[in-house]
Amino acid sequence: MRGRMSDAPSYAAHVEIGEVMVGGTVSRVETSEHADYKAGDLVLSYSGWQDYALSDGKGLTKLDAKLGKPSYALGVLGMPGFTAYMGLLDIGQPQPGETVVVAAATGAVGSVVGQIAKIKGCRVVGIAGGADKCKYAVEELGFDACVDHRAADFPQQLAAACDKGIDVYFENVGGAVFSAVLPLLNLHARVPVCGLIANYNAAGKPEGPDHLPGLMGKLLVRRIKMQGFIIFDYYHRYQEFFKDMSGWLAAGKIKFREDIVDGLENAPQAFIGLLEGKNFGKLVIRVGDE
Amino acid sequence: MRGRMSDAPSYAAHVEIGEVMVGGTVSRVETSEHADYKAGDLVLSYSGWQDYALSDGKGLTKLDAKLGKPSYALGVLGMPGFTAYMGLLDIGQPQPGETVVVAAATGAVGSVVGQIAKIKGCRVVGIAGGADKCKYAVEELGFDACVDHRAADFPQQLAAACDKGIDVYFENVGGAVFSAVLPLLNLHARVPVCGLIANYNAAGKPEGPDHLPGLMGKLLVRRIKMQGFIIFDYYHRYQEFFKDMSGWLAAGKIKFREDIVDGLENAPQAFIGLLEGKNFGKLVIRVGDE
Repeated sequence: MRGRMSDAPSYAAHVEIGEVMVGGTVSRVETSEHADYKAGDLVLSYSGWQDYALSDGKGLTKLDAKLGKPSYALGVLGMPGFTAYMGLLDIGQPQPGETVVVAAATGAVGSVVGQIAKIKGCRVVGIAGGADKCKYAVEELGFDACVDHRAADFPQQLAAACDKGIDVYFENVGGAVFSAVLPLLNLHARVPVCGLIANYNAAGKPEGPDHLPGLMGKLLVRRIKMQGFIIFDYYHRYQEFFKDMSGWLAAGKIKFREDIVDGLENAPQAFIGLLEGKNFGKLVIRVGDE
Repeated sequence: MRGRMSDAPSYAAHVEIGEVMVGGTVSRVETSEHADYKAGDLVLSYSGWQDYALSDGKGLTKLDAKLGKPSYALGVLGMPGFTAYMGLLDIGQPQPGETVVVAAATGAVGSVVGQIAKIKGCRVVGIAGGADKCKYAVEELGFDACVDHRAADFPQQLAAACDKGIDVYFENVGGAVFSAVLPLLNLHARVPVCGLIANYNAAGKPEGPDHLPGLMGKLLVRRIKMQGFIIFDYYHRYQEFFKDMSGWLAAGKIKFREDIVDGLENAPQAFIGLLEGKNFGKLVIRVGDE
């Protein structure tokens, strides 16, 4: 979404000023002339930040009753959960006993990454902003440790929590967090690059020194794989994800926290807060009563 | 070798001042009490930069008569050729019709990378230092194009030669060459990181701006894979390589140029020249008559 608000090249089309902001939505059909949908149906759609939308049926997905909470279609069973699943398993390929580190550890993607890594038998260290989020990651999500990136000695704390180094780092953040992770990456570490929230609002050229030669040298010497990915490229594997994730949810192995904000008029401020790390869980804007 | 002369962390042990410099050698057995070796045998060994060495047989490989020139055991059929083969095919995974770019295009590794990519049906663009090397890459090695990185408009020339972008970039160089490659990388490009010769002699912290955030953003948006590798990790696949490469050599599909320097006393200066791009082909120090 943040990328769509910029005219820098990106994998998604830009939203022009005056256009409706793009976003995934769970919507209720009010009235329909389409044979596949009737009034009252809940659908997953990309109607964006508006109260009502017209659709010819293209791009709509009728919500499965098995989803549980309808909003899960935007979260743990939707794009964020699917992103966590494919990035961790397909690119990260965590092995039992390895150390997996995930930033934005209580967010919609990071919380799922860490819990799947626990299911796969890894030691999981989260990185989050503030004591409350860190406590939640350990006590509720079952992470082995969680380090507050706002602490002055964050790099030292992270190194202490990863005493066997880092085998998989799931990158959501970039910036100073990545700088603390880099020296800890083990031989043959894998780094799925899913997001870089620390960079999205950066303006101008980043100040030196240039850290690129250092990164390249580290990749070479430690034989590290870094790979960017977008969930768009994995849609053919959605059923595999849905089957696993539904099972884990039903078994209570995955918890998913939502940060609900009421009222479409509050969406812009909530979005700004998300970029500043103020949300706690998957940020959902509630526009109806249910 | 350059890494071994530094005390920075690396994948190989350091050589202390006063110790024999490490290096692969083709050696003739002068005298032997080992049942497997007799005087006159040619062996591949890691005896380093010295006239004579003692061995208990460990780490020696008797040279196969099928090698053709004995020095090929240090080149096209040895570590450089094997490095080219595994990095390109295992990490780069070139597909027919894709554009493969390789730097140090007439070097021991780069020349083999480009020729294998041609065998696999790719468009191959080399990067080399100087008109002679570029001419050789196109006319003798069969590359589709080769761009001189010393040209003032090198980035523009590279872009023109890669009019469909770059799908695989085999990284031997780093520095300004990588900066010119980065904007041209296509969706799902693969970057095997084999060497960073431009960085090896760098001292102090590289000046800003910091290019790391830009790289990370590019990896994400274009879903690029970068992966460092060392041939040590592939020894179990040597036979596969040897079979393919022997066949290609016999069929005249792979050419391999050597840059022979006579006399062990000239090894240090030749090595300094290599780091400056002065060699033309695989640099070999000849210490005997044959």
